[in-house]
Amino acid sequence: MSLDLIPRTAYNEDHEAFRHSVRRFLQDEIAPHAAEWGEAGIVPKSVWPKAGAVGMLCPTVPEEYGGLGLDFGYNAIVDEESAYYGRVTTGFSLQSDIVVNYIVSYGSEEQKKKWLPKMVSGEVITAIAMTEPGTGSDLQGMKTTAKKDGNHYVINGSKTYITNGQNADLILVCCKTDTDVQPAWKGVSIVLVEADREGFKRGRNLDKIGQDEADTSELFFEDVRVPITNCLGEEGKGFIYLMSELPQERLSIAVSAQASAQKAFDDTVEFTRERKAFGKPILDFQNTRFTLADLKTKLQVGWAHLDWALTRHLKRELTAEEGAAAKLWHTELQWEVMDKCLQLHGGAGYMNEYAIARAWRGARVTRIFGGTNEIMKELIGRKL
Amino acid sequence: MSLDLIPRTAYNEDHEAFRHSVRRFLQDEIAPHAAEWGEAGIVPKSVWPKAGAVGMLCPTVPEEYGGLGLDFGYNAIVDEESAYYGRVTTGFSLQSDIVVNYIVSYGSEEQKKKWLPKMVSGEVITAIAMTEPGTGSDLQGMKTTAKKDGNHYVINGSKTYITNGQNADLILVCCKTDTDVQPAWKGVSIVLVEADREGFKRGRNLDKIGQDEADTSELFFEDVRVPITNCLGEEGKGFIYLMSELPQERLSIAVSAQASAQKAFDDTVEFTRERKAFGKPILDFQNTRFTLADLKTKLQVGWAHLDWALTRHLKRELTAEEGAAAKLWHTELQWEVMDKCLQLHGGAGYMNEYAIARAWRGARVTRIFGGTNEIMKELIGRKL
Amino acid sequence: MSLDLIPRTAYNEDHEAFRHSVRRFLQDEIAPHAAEWGEAGIVPKSVWPKAGAVGMLCPTVPEEYGGLGLDFGYNAIVDEESAYYGRVTTGFSLQSDIVVNYIVSYGSEEQKKKWLPKMVSGEVITAIAMTEPGTGSDLQGMKTTAKKDGNHYVINGSKTYITNGQNADLILVCCKTDTDVQPAWKGVSIVLVEADREGFKRGRNLDKIGQDEADTSELFFEDVRVPITNCLGEEGKGFIYLMSELPQERLSIAVSAQASAQKAFDDTVEFTRERKAFGKPILDFQNTRFTLADLKTKLQVGWAHLDWALTRHLKRELTAEEGAAAKLWHTELQWEVMDKCLQLHGGAGYMNEYAIARAWRGARVTRIFGGTNEIMKELIGRKL
Amino acid sequence: MSLDLIPRTAYNEDHEAFRHSVRRFLQDEIAPHAAEWGEAGIVPKSVWPKAGAVGMLCPTVPEEYGGLGLDFGYNAIVDEESAYYGRVTTGFSLQSDIVVNYIVSYGSEEQKKKWLPKMVSGEVITAIAMTEPGTGSDLQGMKTTAKKDGNHYVINGSKTYITNGQNADLILVCCKTDTDVQPAWKGVSIVLVEADREGFKRGRNLDKIGQDEADTSELFFEDVRVPITNCLGEEGKGFIYLMSELPQERLSIAVSAQASAQKAFDDTVEFTRERKAFGKPILDFQNTRFTLADLKTKLQVGWAHLDWALTRHLKRELTAEEGAAAKLWHTELQWEVMDKCLQLHGGAGYMNEYAIARAWRGARVTRIFGGTNEIMKELIGRKL
Repeated sequence: MSLDLIPRTAYNEDHEAFRHSVRRFLQDEIAPHAAEWGEAGIVPKSVWPKAGAVGMLCPTVPEEYGGLGLDFGYNAIVDEESAYYGRVTTGFSLQSDIVVNYIVSYGSEEQKKKWLPKMVSGEVITAIAMTEPGTGSDLQGMKTTAKKDGNHYVINGSKTYITNGQNADLILVCCKTDTDVQPAWKGVSIVLVEADREGFKRGRNLDKIGQDEADTSELFFEDVRVPITNCLGEEGKGFIYLMSELPQERLSIAVSAQASAQKAFDDTVEFTRERKAFGKPILDFQNTRFTLADLKTKLQVGWAHLDWALTRHLKRELTAEEGAAAKLWHTELQWEVMDKCLQLHGGAGYMNEYAIARAWRGARVTRIFGGTNEIMKELIGRKL
Repeated sequence: MSLDLIPRTAYNEDHEAFRHSVRRFLQDEIAPHAAEWGEAGIVPKSVWPKAGAVGMLCPTVPEEYGGLGLDFGYNAIVDEESAYYGRVTTGFSLQSDIVVNYIVSYGSEEQKKKWLPKMVSGEVITAIAMTEPGTGSDLQGMKTTAKKDGNHYVINGSKTYITNGQNADLILVCCKTDTDVQPAWKGVSIVLVEADREGFKRGRNLDKIGQDEADTSELFFEDVRVPITNCLGEEGKGFIYLMSELPQERLSIAVSAQASAQKAFDDTVEFTRERKAFGKPILDFQNTRFTLADLKTKLQVGWAHLDWALTRHLKRELTAEEGAAAKLWHTELQWEVMDKCLQLHGGAGYMNEYAIARAWRGARVTRIFGGTNEIMKELIGRKL
Repeated sequence: MSLDLIPRTAYNEDHEAFRHSVRRFLQDEIAPHAAEWGEAGIVPKSVWPKAGAVGMLCPTVPEEYGGLGLDFGYNAIVDEESAYYGRVTTGFSLQSDIVVNYIVSYGSEEQKKKWLPKMVSGEVITAIAMTEPGTGSDLQGMKTTAKKDGNHYVINGSKTYITNGQNADLILVCCKTDTDVQPAWKGVSIVLVEADREGFKRGRNLDKIGQDEADTSELFFEDVRVPITNCLGEEGKGFIYLMSELPQERLSIAVSAQASAQKAFDDTVEFTRERKAFGKPILDFQNTRFTLADLKTKLQVGWAHLDWALTRHLKRELTAEEGAAAKLWHTELQWEVMDKCLQLHGGAGYMNEYAIARAWRGARVTRIFGGTNEIMKELIGRKL
Repeated sequence: MSLDLIPRTAYNEDHEAFRHSVRRFLQDEIAPHAAEWGEAGIVPKSVWPKAGAVGMLCPTVPEEYGGLGLDFGYNAIVDEESAYYGRVTTGFSLQSDIVVNYIVSYGSEEQKKKWLPKMVSGEVITAIAMTEPGTGSDLQGMKTTAKKDGNHYVINGSKTYITNGQNADLILVCCKTDTDVQPAWKGVSIVLVEADREGFKRGRNLDKIGQDEADTSELFFEDVRVPITNCLGEEGKGFIYLMSELPQERLSIAVSAQASAQKAFDDTVEFTRERKAFGKPILDFQNTRFTLADLKTKLQVGWAHLDWALTRHLKRELTAEEGAAAKLWHTELQWEVMDKCLQLHGGAGYMNEYAIARAWRGARVTRIFGGTNEIMKELIGRKL
């Protein structure tokens, strides 16, 4: 099987040409290292410039800042191919689908000139630090502060579950520049912190259930001083900025979820066709066929919905609720596919040497990150 | 709420204009009679010519046979609007989406000239008789026979679960013209039987769980003689004809399922907004909001998939497996929506005076008819 | 199959002997009339004294008040056998498992002497009126009032969804004797209203999804005068009385749910063993076997739990949360069994002439009445 | 919370006294080493004699062979306490609940005298080798052979997924002593192989999704010679012996599944009570309460069923289908509890430092081992 066999409506020929160059890169430079990087618990920084060289990083950055000026469809292609052929969580998506948009949309000219070209080339790796120990998805409750001292901020606090935390050269830190204002969200700002600032320390690279190679870390800020020109956009607008970028983040999660589910499905069809029990292929049992037929049906539905959502997003019509719904639905589908496919592998499914075991472990986080699926329901439910 | 608020991609402006004239007809001529026709267990024949007059019947029939020569999108519009605004199962869909295609595709010139104009105008009501007592979806096992006697067939057998059975003027009877040939499906033919033929008898209008107004009957054939020119297309090709028309039948079921689910959802949002418990609207409880948010998500996904499937069908690209998947998925969704929405109505949901109770009863059959959902899984699973 | 084949732990030999006499009565006097009474929408009053004569009504009433002074196990036997062999909702359970306990536990000596013997014999049919239009399970929000006028109450208000509403000779009316007191539940009392009181009117026998023969009605009270000695127990304690009887009511629902699910299962095993598709019994398809194996497993678990709960209740150890959990779990199981069994019947499942169709319709209410299953979760969740 | 708060019916006072000494041992000698042993991928052999000293190993062995001659209830106590308080998969259960019964039931006097006392004391660790690469639960398809050569067998073949594979001193090897006989299961025998036999080699300690400390290995047999007196019971009866012991194996899995689910639940109630979001404890959100109420209900049902099954097993009444149903139901419950509880932990749930993450990973195998849950359905379904 191959992603090429799925009938799609969101992409044009240029997208599809790009898809094949991305695929080749993933097959040559990423997939073969999955075990090694998983063992190490991190993707080496050296692979980022290679990805940059083939145009995989931040394809939407305007040409004047060193980018290709393409649409989000190219990001989605990278996400799909990475999930299907790469099967390594590289952290590219965080940079391309999420972080870069903050700088493109709200950065000063100086910030754009300084960071965007290097984010495109892979010379700079970025992270965005939202979550804090003990708070989860409740951004208004954050405790990290940036206090003004002359023309500097002094930042104090700690963050956790930060993707690219170990590798990051630049961190977009969500913090309170005003702890008194009511409502509390009006005190949230986003401040750019370079990783070589004094007082900034990386904590543990957290030991997770899956996505072994993904660097997910704690970060500490102790009297970290940065110039006030490091503030992204306006002070006190951080919460609004975050809200504005979430639909794309959620769509990006949905894209990866759908493609990784398709991969698990395709692998399982092959496994059950080859593996025998009681003298015949497992696929020949009605229960196997019915389970797979049901999943195939849902994957068909999923691709149709994903293309609909991508098309709407490309036309800037996708609402926040629709984006939340996409995140919710595709990650729930992903999990159902993963778990049923693992079961069809029998004992092999429990062994990390099988791709399904790693994919299954990796997939468990998608119902949690980017806002838990309960938060998605809250967002959608509020608008009823 | 209204169907107009759902963002769609399958239709053009002409479709949408047609939608509004259909809606008006349904609101004026159909919906007000729901209770009366439900009580009677049948939709009166007199309403068919009225529907014909507004172009709702068989819109795809070519102009040379009295039709409008439109595409299946117009059928789908009628199905959606009927499910959402009519809330009466009229039997129009069987004639327009299913039966008429057999005659258009395989009928002789004489048969087309004789029947198509009247099917368009509503002067003639049709049925197709597949299922037999004790066989269900297993068409190859049918026992009704048509034996040749000179230039006539002599038909014997009985059929059950026949939509429009009481009203039908013309029945397309699936029967065996050869009971010896192997494989058995090569003996199946479709023969046109006019309702005034001697030996044809209508049995009971069956007492069903729901769709009270839908006429679903037993039919009996005792030495019914029809000329051999009443055979549809070629003898022995009946099974192939049936297979060729099933994807559209299944898509038609999916369309109605999705629209009726949306209606139940919209009604329930309104009900829970108005009905109070423990001093606040039911909608204000998190469980209600989460339940509805989850359903809204699935409905969003459903519309995207339906438009994808409709668009493919209009381009003649929808495969048999994709059509089966659509029937499977949308009817399962319909049921989930109906049952959860009924529950949110509390005791009211169990009372037939509430629309949700009738819709819920009516919806239970869609996982069964048009091939049970287990058959759908079998069809999809075989192709893995 | 038969209920006798299930290994049970809650009953002794006397219970089992009683079971067989109950069964005979149900098979002779109840089951044969199912269709007729369903058509009529009511069980005739004449059957009550016959049931009383075989000891089926209110077996727990002490001998001094004309009863047998037995334990709740006898009630449970009647519930099981009625659900499995009777398949008619008679209203006996309401009288025996619920209403009678209020009078036994809280009635005055005069009330006991007057009503209990006739409730045991079946001369008097009772109802309890809690729910009001637009309130559902929120008892504190009730609007029916009983205002004191000398040594009478004057009752005004309306009730709905009242089991035995048409047949009842005596109604226990839940109402507010004090509308000012805070918290509001302290104003709730239960007042006995004889059906021949002036100003009492029966409304419609409601048209329900199922349980066609069960009389479920609206009741109206317009300046109904009853002596204050008709108050059950103390004024203002009604809410506490209701709370004290709910665990048994819920256990009673659980008992019936489990037994009716077992009946649907047993019927379906038989149906799928006899009905053929594609040349072999439906039971021989792996999907059928797996579905039924899964249900059989859950039924096994259910009987074990039910016996555990019955045994605890007989020792007066069953907590309110445990009773709520029993109602929740067994009614959800019942529904799952009903719906999957109906599906395995194919088209037949949708026809009211098949027992599964009627059982399925009848079962839909159990997740709603006796407190919706959402209320059960609320009750259990509060104690965490 | 504590297991002591669950009302139980299967145990007597002696069982409960034993429970507390087991618990102390687990808390002192097992639980503190979880991380260390998980890291090492194995439980050290040195802990076995300590467990033997407190009577935790093989409590059912008759006194004449060094055991305590107790009933299976004591095994179940060890399983429950290990799952709840130990949270380490030690391999004790395999020895006590499964392997030892083969020797007690079918071993020669010599075999019993030689092995049972040391199995009780923990001097000898055992394994049973059924599964082979590529076969899974299909025991009749096994390829390992034991060919007679004089008064020796010569064993060749390989096994996989063998619990205690690295630590085992004695392996019960399931193999074919006759590869020609039909039906094939009549050729299966069980042969005792001491780990120091020439030609026996341990393969990899497999890298699993969870149960990090559990040693699960490949084993290889290359011309391993053992005397024919090492055959367990009669030649050719191995399959029958396996079938006879499976109900207890499955019940043992059910016991552990239920207890570990209760532990995850109890931890999660505590977590959601303490962890706050949006200014209030997570437990105060209705969705959290409903989710936990639903799980609590199912756990209540589960304990009732488990006690029923244990009681039946102690009376030797538990059938093979009932044992299979217990394995199926309790492991499905375990998974539902684990997955929903992990979700309620949010991001923390994905981190291995939290007990829920390790428990969740560990639990995934129980729907697979001891016969997959699909095999359970097959077994139950066949008897319908």
